[in-house]
Amino acid sequence: MTATSSDQLDEIYAFAVQLGKDAGSMLMDAARSRFGDAGQSEQAIEEKDSAVDIVTKTDEAVEAFIKNSIAEKYPRHKFLGEESYSRSSSRDYLITDAAPTWCVDPLDGTVNFTHLFPMFCVSIGFIVGGDAVIGVICAPFLNQLFSACRGRGAWLNESLPLPLVRNPVPPLPAQAPSGCVFSCEWGKDRRDTPDGNMHRKVESFVNMAAEIGGRGGQGGMVHGVRSLGSATLDLAYMAMDVAAGIAILQEAGGLITTANPPKNSDTAAIPDVRLGSRLYLAVRPAGPSPTESGRQGQERVVREVWRRVRSLDYARPGA
Amino acid sequence: MTATSSDQLDEIYAFAVQLGKDAGSMLMDAARSRFGDAGQSEQAIEEKDSAVDIVTKTDEAVEAFIKNSIAEKYPRHKFLGEESYSRSSSRDYLITDAAPTWCVDPLDGTVNFTHLFPMFCVSIGFIVGGDAVIGVICAPFLNQLFSACRGRGAWLNESLPLPLVRNPVPPLPAQAPSGCVFSCEWGKDRRDTPDGNMHRKVESFVNMAAEIGGRGGQGGMVHGVRSLGSATLDLAYMAMDVAAGIAILQEAGGLITTANPPKNSDTAAIPDVRLGSRLYLAVRPAGPSPTESGRQGQERVVREVWRRVRSLDYARPGA
Repeated sequence: MTATSSDQLDEIYAFAVQLGKDAGSMLMDAARSRFGDAGQSEQAIEEKDSAVDIVTKTDEAVEAFIKNSIAEKYPRHKFLGEESYSRSSSRDYLITDAAPTWCVDPLDGTVNFTHLFPMFCVSIGFIVGGDAVIGVICAPFLNQLFSACRGRGAWLNESLPLPLVRNPVPPLPAQAPSGCVFSCEWGKDRRDTPDGNMHRKVESFVNMAAEIGGRGGQGGMVHGVRSLGSATLDLAYMAMDVAAGIAILQEAGGLITTANPPKNSDTAAIPDVRLGSRLYLAVRPAGPSPTESGRQGQERVVREVWRRVRSLDYARPGA
Repeated sequence: MTATSSDQLDEIYAFAVQLGKDAGSMLMDAARSRFGDAGQSEQAIEEKDSAVDIVTKTDEAVEAFIKNSIAEKYPRHKFLGEESYSRSSSRDYLITDAAPTWCVDPLDGTVNFTHLFPMFCVSIGFIVGGDAVIGVICAPFLNQLFSACRGRGAWLNESLPLPLVRNPVPPLPAQAPSGCVFSCEWGKDRRDTPDGNMHRKVESFVNMAAEIGGRGGQGGMVHGVRSLGSATLDLAYMAMDVAAGIAILQEAGGLITTANPPKNSDTAAIPDVRLGSRLYLAVRPAGPSPTESGRQGQERVVREVWRRVRSLDYARPGA
């Protein structure tokens, strides 16, 4: 924890949870004011359909609120917001040094937000030495607050311990990915180019969904295919089956690595998640089975997924 | 309303809402007891992975509770449950006569339920003369209760009127389906057969997602592609952008028809939804634009979707 003591961490955790609640309220207020009695002129409707302005304004206002709150309370902490990130040319979040850093996405699930589809949230992470030690996710339209702090566990609505599945955490299915829920996102790249990202993704999705034996042996027969439109809530809900965000999922015992299969995917070391890579592959917390440890089960599932998915090539993160 | 007076309808509506809340609590209790301290033996874990027993037990218990509650309060009403439906050889729910009939799915989103993925719900419809006049949907893990009664409006959590988007309800985008959120479900048929249902669905999904001009002109460039694993909540949330379930969505002004394109899809009459067909195409409530009525906009979107999707052939409903 470098320069952060345990008492300090408790204080920072409580601060982060309150910040998440307040920012969540701001998101709901923004959604309501947009869809409320305020003049729905033709122009407002046009703006709605372009969906850019409302998102930009809400993004900026919520990020500014969070940034200012942190600067006031912890003037020496670094701050990395979505805005800073979008302006960066790097593929990764610039979290390279040991300084305590707040990593904030004021509005994840922007398309959902603009359509009042409830799966949107604010995501607040606190990183020390490159590790996500605190995570808070607030989905105000769903009345759900996920939080976690290293060593303090992961929680839903501050009362239900995550993973919900306990005593013991069940192992991953022997035939995984068969029997698993598979969450994936279509993303914004819709170019109809042969072997483009959209087609590679769909090929991967179909491989995961198809019957065992199908797709030239790549069929994964997952139990269900889900797309929520919020990568943060994908993590939270996958983790629900046993936890939530990277800090939350890790605190609950999940494994997070890259979704792009490495060469020698059957034997390659499974790399730790690179914050900001935006090509995450996450596996829920898992208990041991008679034949393998929980971690071994998770690594097995990672390799089974890598066998079925195509590498994606993004010139810019998030594209 | 045949033999049902307005006062009676108010009473039945209040009864249905309470029934939805109670049934939702039963679903949460079942989920918790399954994932709680009760012995997670290897056998229990196996049963979890097969996912059949828990769903069957919960389905049956919740359906029996609802059925008995209705029989006690309204002994002359008919009852049609998921169980009755699954045993029927017909493609349609057998709602053909004018007798007041309760149509109940005790657990929609069963795969989600077995994985504690929060998008599951109980769905209660009350049908008179073939019309859904009352709808109640309770998603207990999301703290969301949708309700509607003919002439009384549609509501979220009994306090927020649906559609949330009002004053006025915005028209559908001129370039729709571009600009719309597209909710779809992968379903259980994963056979990797050429031109089978899975491949037809995926082809449809890709058409809806691809850039305008792509896919030989079929690209729909929808704003986002969503799969929640609960057709009921798909309806509810789509409708949120402006409502839930067939009764709820209709009460809010939505249009619901068949997802299988008819011949002459550009000119064919747009048929009313057939309850139980399980191939629904629903469009959110829409206000008028300078050039078309809300209904005209909805019909335009139906035809644009029909242009992009393949007909599916299900030997049995729900397969």
